[in-house]
Amino acid sequence: MKVTAQKIADLIGGRVEGNPGAVITHLAKIEDAGPGSITFLANPKYTHYLYETKASAVVVNEDFKPEKKVDASLIRVNDAYKAFSDILEFFHQDFPQKTGIESPSFIHPTARIGKNVYIGAFAYIDEQVVIGDNVKIFPHVYVGAESQIGENTILYPGVKLYHQTVIGRHCIIHAGAVIGSDGFGFAPDRENYKKIPQIGNVVIGDNVEIGANSTIDRATMGSTVIRDGVKLDNQVQVAHNVEIGENTVIAAQTGISGSTKVGRNCQIGGQVGMAGHIRIGNNVRVGAQSGIVNDVPDNEVLIGSPAINAQLFRKASVLFKKLPQLYEDIKQIKRKLGLK
Amino acid sequence: MKVTAQKIADLIGGRVEGNPGAVITHLAKIEDAGPGSITFLANPKYTHYLYETKASAVVVNEDFKPEKKVDASLIRVNDAYKAFSDILEFFHQDFPQKTGIESPSFIHPTARIGKNVYIGAFAYIDEQVVIGDNVKIFPHVYVGAESQIGENTILYPGVKLYHQTVIGRHCIIHAGAVIGSDGFGFAPDRENYKKIPQIGNVVIGDNVEIGANSTIDRATMGSTVIRDGVKLDNQVQVAHNVEIGENTVIAAQTGISGSTKVGRNCQIGGQVGMAGHIRIGNNVRVGAQSGIVNDVPDNEVLIGSPAINAQLFRKASVLFKKLPQLYEDIKQIKRKLGLK
Amino acid sequence: MKVTAQKIADLIGGRVEGNPGAVITHLAKIEDAGPGSITFLANPKYTHYLYETKASAVVVNEDFKPEKKVDASLIRVNDAYKAFSDILEFFHQDFPQKTGIESPSFIHPTARIGKNVYIGAFAYIDEQVVIGDNVKIFPHVYVGAESQIGENTILYPGVKLYHQTVIGRHCIIHAGAVIGSDGFGFAPDRENYKKIPQIGNVVIGDNVEIGANSTIDRATMGSTVIRDGVKLDNQVQVAHNVEIGENTVIAAQTGISGSTKVGRNCQIGGQVGMAGHIRIGNNVRVGAQSGIVNDVPDNEVLIGSPAINAQLFRKASVLFKKLPQLYEDIKQIKRKLGLK
Repeated sequence: MKVTAQKIADLIGGRVEGNPGAVITHLAKIEDAGPGSITFLANPKYTHYLYETKASAVVVNEDFKPEKKVDASLIRVNDAYKAFSDILEFFHQDFPQKTGIESPSFIHPTARIGKNVYIGAFAYIDEQVVIGDNVKIFPHVYVGAESQIGENTILYPGVKLYHQTVIGRHCIIHAGAVIGSDGFGFAPDRENYKKIPQIGNVVIGDNVEIGANSTIDRATMGSTVIRDGVKLDNQVQVAHNVEIGENTVIAAQTGISGSTKVGRNCQIGGQVGMAGHIRIGNNVRVGAQSGIVNDVPDNEVLIGSPAINAQLFRKASVLFKKLPQLYEDIKQIKRKLGLK
Repeated sequence: MKVTAQKIADLIGGRVEGNPGAVITHLAKIEDAGPGSITFLANPKYTHYLYETKASAVVVNEDFKPEKKVDASLIRVNDAYKAFSDILEFFHQDFPQKTGIESPSFIHPTARIGKNVYIGAFAYIDEQVVIGDNVKIFPHVYVGAESQIGENTILYPGVKLYHQTVIGRHCIIHAGAVIGSDGFGFAPDRENYKKIPQIGNVVIGDNVEIGANSTIDRATMGSTVIRDGVKLDNQVQVAHNVEIGENTVIAAQTGISGSTKVGRNCQIGGQVGMAGHIRIGNNVRVGAQSGIVNDVPDNEVLIGSPAINAQLFRKASVLFKKLPQLYEDIKQIKRKLGLK
Repeated sequence: MKVTAQKIADLIGGRVEGNPGAVITHLAKIEDAGPGSITFLANPKYTHYLYETKASAVVVNEDFKPEKKVDASLIRVNDAYKAFSDILEFFHQDFPQKTGIESPSFIHPTARIGKNVYIGAFAYIDEQVVIGDNVKIFPHVYVGAESQIGENTILYPGVKLYHQTVIGRHCIIHAGAVIGSDGFGFAPDRENYKKIPQIGNVVIGDNVEIGANSTIDRATMGSTVIRDGVKLDNQVQVAHNVEIGENTVIAAQTGISGSTKVGRNCQIGGQVGMAGHIRIGNNVRVGAQSGIVNDVPDNEVLIGSPAINAQLFRKASVLFKKLPQLYEDIKQIKRKLGLK
């Protein structure tokens, strides 16, 4: 894309100070920005970069007063951070969008496909599947029988949906994610294990994003449920019959065991593990690598394995490092007191 | 599926108390069960749900005596828990099973395919592959050259088997699992690393289940071996030359490093890590998120990173939280004794 | 493959002692080696196996003096370990290599394909892609628009490259790896989150190996960068805008959060987590399951979560187990001193 500083100023309701014809080809962080790039300054900590930058244009706040000469054209707006997010969106939309049905693909005659849909080559749509308008299904996607996909949802290459999976509107499922695989359920049977059939499904709400190579198992019966607005990072594991509440965000490589319920608006760090059959409240925050083994009330902030209050964890961690010294202290005290 | 309470009672050798014509369309847990559902009561803790349930039928033990009025039809059997597992199986079998070879798929002319096999569209079967009777190979599966797949095994969509992989009978490999990728072996070579060729393979026994997006590396030479009855959950990582003994069960996101041998009938929690070149005995139980760095004798119960005896870990974890108090105690004692 | 001991001796510049016509069909470790196999002895610890082995040939160092009778033919070389690696390479090359373009595959007419390339059935090459000479693209690989792949690189089955991914020469990307998926970036927007468009890409250097089902996110803007010679094991997660320096090696299931920079020649264990926006020096070694939350200087050796100096961690871990005893000691001391 090639665009002038003035065109971007118009887009974000800003005012150019400098050369309105400066040509912009890409976006960059202020510390990396070179000729042809547009960047932004919102955090005063980065102001010093402004006086050295080779960027062609910099978005700044209306009230910003430079203390030295600036080579770049400035675009003044009310909120530089928010305006730059709009520029990201603008550049992002520039990338060509696919539509139509590529060949060869496999679409069962009983499947119902909405309007303005993209179905890539080598995609597989099984019987009785229902696909909403404006859905994009990339190559190598598998949509099992009787699944439903809401409008405007994107399934990136190689997503696998087992049968009867339900996905809402405006969702994004990244490459390699597997949704609806069997829950890990076995009943001991003498020396062996007998598989417990997994006849439930997975139901995903609207505006959900699921990261690359994440896995969500179907329920034994009933549904594994991911509610509206949930964001899962890459390589997250969600076991059978789990429920995750609205707008909860979970970082990469976290795993949630069977039948656990996670509340709304939680923030869960990466590589966290949660035991099965527990209940996590709303607005809970869990630090990376924590292990949650018990129910957690609303608004808690936890870290550690097993997880404890985050402040307490930090204090105790500092003292963990001092254990060798504490041990020597106790030895010395015992000697002094004549204790064994 | 639509079926009467009587039909289900016949199936599980039970006796209907109430309406034998009650129509059942699905299964549910007793706390979720609504009209049209059948559920079961085995754990007395859940008895109170029975008096409120809208389920159409409930499977109960022969000797159960309700203390209040129950609206649902009851089906009495000797073992309600086991009977319900049979009902799950019955509903599961109702789902249509695929057979035949879909088009387009790639089957090398030298591959030998058994009877009554399903090969989905976009599956790739390379040269000299041998596939047993009743095998199901879903779309987007890749079976590398000279691989063998035993009868009645299911490969779900997108499973990738590198060349010379051997899989037994009655196995289930879930979507996105990768079996036979190169072991992670490099020899230092001045500043760089030189790849050590990985010319072994992976050999998997009978009745093995492998979870979605799990990975099992081929051996450097010889075989990485997964024995009969092993169950691996999703996103498990098994490195080159590992061996896992019969009927060992491993939960999600656990990783086992190269050349480690795990015994029979072990239960390994989720997100566990095992160092390389160690030996885990039989009947060992390892708690979630543990790190195993040394050999483990038979029948041990371990947890922690590094892992220690589980009881000791629980005691020490409680005291970890008290470290700030212990630290203050020691300071006070030292003051009292005039120590520095 | 069938080959004589003499042929292998010629290959590695060795001298046969015994039967030069001994037929070799496969390689094995000395403890497993049976008839038809060749093995090697480099570590004196394993010498006792030599006197019992059924191997047809054993590679030994020039100066090795057996103390008992050996049945196998010996092949004497200067460096038995290195020579055996060459034999591995020789056997590895024996496996048939694919070339040509299989059908059906999807290759956009604007894609530029080098010489002597393999493109497997069901591979998808989007518009403006550039593929170097001798590249191997296995079945079910997806190469997004405007991506570039350097010469001699191998993409194993089911690899997914989002648009504009750049991969160097002599790289190996294992099955199911996803490169270029969206970074996990969301801006709070009242109760919900608004997606931050991810318009950067991923750039991978030469001689990089990436394990099965690993995931590398594209940058928000600019590039996520994996430099020459980096080796990532299976199920590694690399977030947006991360940089990994030359010849750094990272074991399985490790995750690196957004914008973190990892130096050169580091060795990172399995299941390690790194916080975002931190800087890891060169030659740093991190033990398995560690959590890195702060910057790390060059040459550090760390372990633990949060990670501390490795020696200190080992001492403190031993004392963690003794916490119950230390607690009793303190109680006793307080009693003796009349403290509460």
